[in-house]
Amino acid sequence: MKSLESKILNEGKVLSETVLKVDSFLNHQIDPKLMRQIGEEFAARFADAGVTKILTLESSGIAPSVMAGLTMNVPVVFARKRKSLTLINDLYSAEVHSFTKKETNEISISSEYINQNDVVLVIDDFLANGQAVLGLMDILNQAGASLAGVGIVIEKGFQDGGKMIREKGIQVESLAIIDSLAEGNVTFRKEGALK
Amino acid sequence: MKSLESKILNEGKVLSETVLKVDSFLNHQIDPKLMRQIGEEFAARFADAGVTKILTLESSGIAPSVMAGLTMNVPVVFARKRKSLTLINDLYSAEVHSFTKKETNEISISSEYINQNDVVLVIDDFLANGQAVLGLMDILNQAGASLAGVGIVIEKGFQDGGKMIREKGIQVESLAIIDSLAEGNVTFRKEGALK
Repeated sequence: MKSLESKILNEGKVLSETVLKVDSFLNHQIDPKLMRQIGEEFAARFADAGVTKILTLESSGIAPSVMAGLTMNVPVVFARKRKSLTLINDLYSAEVHSFTKKETNEISISSEYINQNDVVLVIDDFLANGQAVLGLMDILNQAGASLAGVGIVIEKGFQDGGKMIREKGIQVESLAIIDSLAEGNVTFRKEGALK
Repeated sequence: MKSLESKILNEGKVLSETVLKVDSFLNHQIDPKLMRQIGEEFAARFADAGVTKILTLESSGIAPSVMAGLTMNVPVVFARKRKSLTLINDLYSAEVHSFTKKETNEISISSEYINQNDVVLVIDDFLANGQAVLGLMDILNQAGASLAGVGIVIEKGFQDGGKMIREKGIQVESLAIIDSLAEGNVTFRKEGALK
């Protein structure tokens, strides 16, 4: 998605060979017009998937998900993160390890909002090692829901999450795929290129 | 706002005389169309305030804020919550005590995204004791920014946050004001009524 790639080139900060900071439009400050475009793009790419619900993770997944939900006319559910494992009834939970933050969170949703009749589009801001997406897929499995696919704003193509999830036969649509952050430069994967 | 009041009556769960749960459309599952209406309503109520930026708090403030930002064509900044007080450069921080959750969080924003030229609309999902709004106002004060006003989705009119903030001469626009949750029933304040 060209407008997203331009935004990343203009405003993204390459902090290391693996860390890209996009706090000016996605992770701290949010650009609502860009989110709207992103939502419309997800809606277009999953137009034929019969999506009944979007599942994301607080906090940075919420803005793109709500815009996709607006276009697709479906509700959005955001999983909550907790540090401690608390046992509460009627929750579907999974553990998600973040390699970047070096911490494990429990993520959970109420069983009220996703069930076996749902066809769910999972949306998240970043895809790196794929741990968050696997956690959300685990939750969908517990709910007996179907997975329509995975929509990602920015995929770190040099990490293995995208490959791992695509190899399961799941449709993963990443609106920008970064192949390298070497020497402080962002290099995008060409559209259509596989790796 | 009639559509919001209907939604609260139809889907809200009164858990006690002070607790209303609206997890089906605002705090866990999100209704994107309703959020869009809410965003448009905030935009209309603060149309003449010269707003340059919206400030909210993760996670439930994000959806209504992004929709308001889309209509008003301004960026949204969401403050992050942390349990522990970590000293990081270039952050504006404040402590916010939640009476409901009986915990104190540090909320913070990067100093990069709000400055003394900004006229900021503060948006949040709930207003009860007003501690979150006071924390966000504290942050704006540190940034030297101006406060355009406060937009709230649901105000608990029987708690004192709204009164306290309005007494400071600040424009507070709550799209639904609840006067009572007694006996499991939601009673709204009539529009235009002061208390």
